[in-house]
Amino acid sequence: MARAAKKVSRGKRAAPQKHRTARRPPLVRGYGSEPGFPISLAMRAGDFVFTSAQGDHGFNPADVVYDKDGLVISDGNSLPPRSMADETRATLRNLEASLKEAGCTLADVVDASVWLRDPRDFAEMNRAYGEFFTGNQPTRSIFRIDFMFDCRVEIKVTAYKPLKAAKRKTPRR
Amino acid sequence: MARAAKKVSRGKRAAPQKHRTARRPPLVRGYGSEPGFPISLAMRAGDFVFTSAQGDHGFNPADVVYDKDGLVISDGNSLPPRSMADETRATLRNLEASLKEAGCTLADVVDASVWLRDPRDFAEMNRAYGEFFTGNQPTRSIFRIDFMFDCRVEIKVTAYKPLKAAKRKTPRR
Amino acid sequence: MARAAKKVSRGKRAAPQKHRTARRPPLVRGYGSEPGFPISLAMRAGDFVFTSAQGDHGFNPADVVYDKDGLVISDGNSLPPRSMADETRATLRNLEASLKEAGCTLADVVDASVWLRDPRDFAEMNRAYGEFFTGNQPTRSIFRIDFMFDCRVEIKVTAYKPLKAAKRKTPRR
Repeated sequence: MARAAKKVSRGKRAAPQKHRTARRPPLVRGYGSEPGFPISLAMRAGDFVFTSAQGDHGFNPADVVYDKDGLVISDGNSLPPRSMADETRATLRNLEASLKEAGCTLADVVDASVWLRDPRDFAEMNRAYGEFFTGNQPTRSIFRIDFMFDCRVEIKVTAYKPLKAAKRKTPRR
Repeated sequence: MARAAKKVSRGKRAAPQKHRTARRPPLVRGYGSEPGFPISLAMRAGDFVFTSAQGDHGFNPADVVYDKDGLVISDGNSLPPRSMADETRATLRNLEASLKEAGCTLADVVDASVWLRDPRDFAEMNRAYGEFFTGNQPTRSIFRIDFMFDCRVEIKVTAYKPLKAAKRKTPRR
Repeated sequence: MARAAKKVSRGKRAAPQKHRTARRPPLVRGYGSEPGFPISLAMRAGDFVFTSAQGDHGFNPADVVYDKDGLVISDGNSLPPRSMADETRATLRNLEASLKEAGCTLADVVDASVWLRDPRDFAEMNRAYGEFFTGNQPTRSIFRIDFMFDCRVEIKVTAYKPLKAAKRKTPRR
């Protein structure tokens, strides 16, 4: 289950899954997937594109080690130490990749949810986050949370990109 | 307050509230209710249908017993022991019933949020959840959380079902 | 950073930022801001208006004091003691102000998320909340959470208000 995702940082993942796109993209469509998870990483529904909540790396549920209260100690990945700013940036770049598959960019994001393991990371996350949203600034919610894997930040976004404005994914000839 | 909801598993609730539906359903409309709660269980807004976060049973706030830190010990229900898989399935069937009142099915779901009391339940929940989403796979967020009642999982979904495609609820003659 | 927000209850804030609004408002637009935060307080996207999660007062991240586990002890504000009902009402009035800037009211809300620091506040919050939603009752999610600042409740809403029905912000002559 989800073996393929093990120890693979999503930030470094290979070329995203290719889709053959018709001239007129469908009203509802999922983009991207994670082995072992029955989800899409991005989903268009009409004029909106939703993403799954994402961190800066994937995980395999079978590799997660819990403490006696059920909180995550390790997810089996051995990622290099990284600052909260870098973890935030990598997370947003993953979301950017998911949005791109669905024909959007971070500039189309209208609403965001951010979860932090430690409220003390707020200021550093907030500064790195701001680097990515210099035009229209989406509404946002931020809360402390316990994650399903060894992660300090997860972010989920909703983008607005009407279909007629979506980029063609196959060049016209 | 909410007496009627006490010890009634939503999964076993009686026939859903009937609505007389005009030929053209309204752009905004709430469906379903819980005694004592100023909410709808599903709400159509344009092409989208939102649900409230739901567990596998209702509760009466007056019956909830808390520990010294304010966490829920009991909600006054005495439900039979059930696996995480069964609790997940019952939760999704409740959502399915709410979506049905609003003219949708789980196949129309485009985004989901899942909350678990214990991260160790992730894998079992994930498998049961996957049984319900074999076509289009919605984007998803999952976090550990403390609930307002004695519950191990709650789920909330957003569906996309343009009005012209919504099922008529009253047969035409 | 965010000095201006210090010790200013949002409920008492001065006149909201003025916008010059064209006859036809744009499809995507942010409304309201908080010094030091790269966010909008409300954001229109097509027929929907999202808000940020809001409490009853603002905070300056630099003033927050944490305990050894990273939980918030103080946010540097010295607000008068207030009941959960009053904190809920002030929070909803802040959301109302944000929605108003975007041409909506609480009557347009279709979905809400509520977070409480202490589940024992549920019943009191629920009653105060109900005072604001006596017509269409939005779907709702409620969870216990730890906040980024010294707060007992935060709420976020999604409103549905098609553009052609949005109020003109500049009077016609």
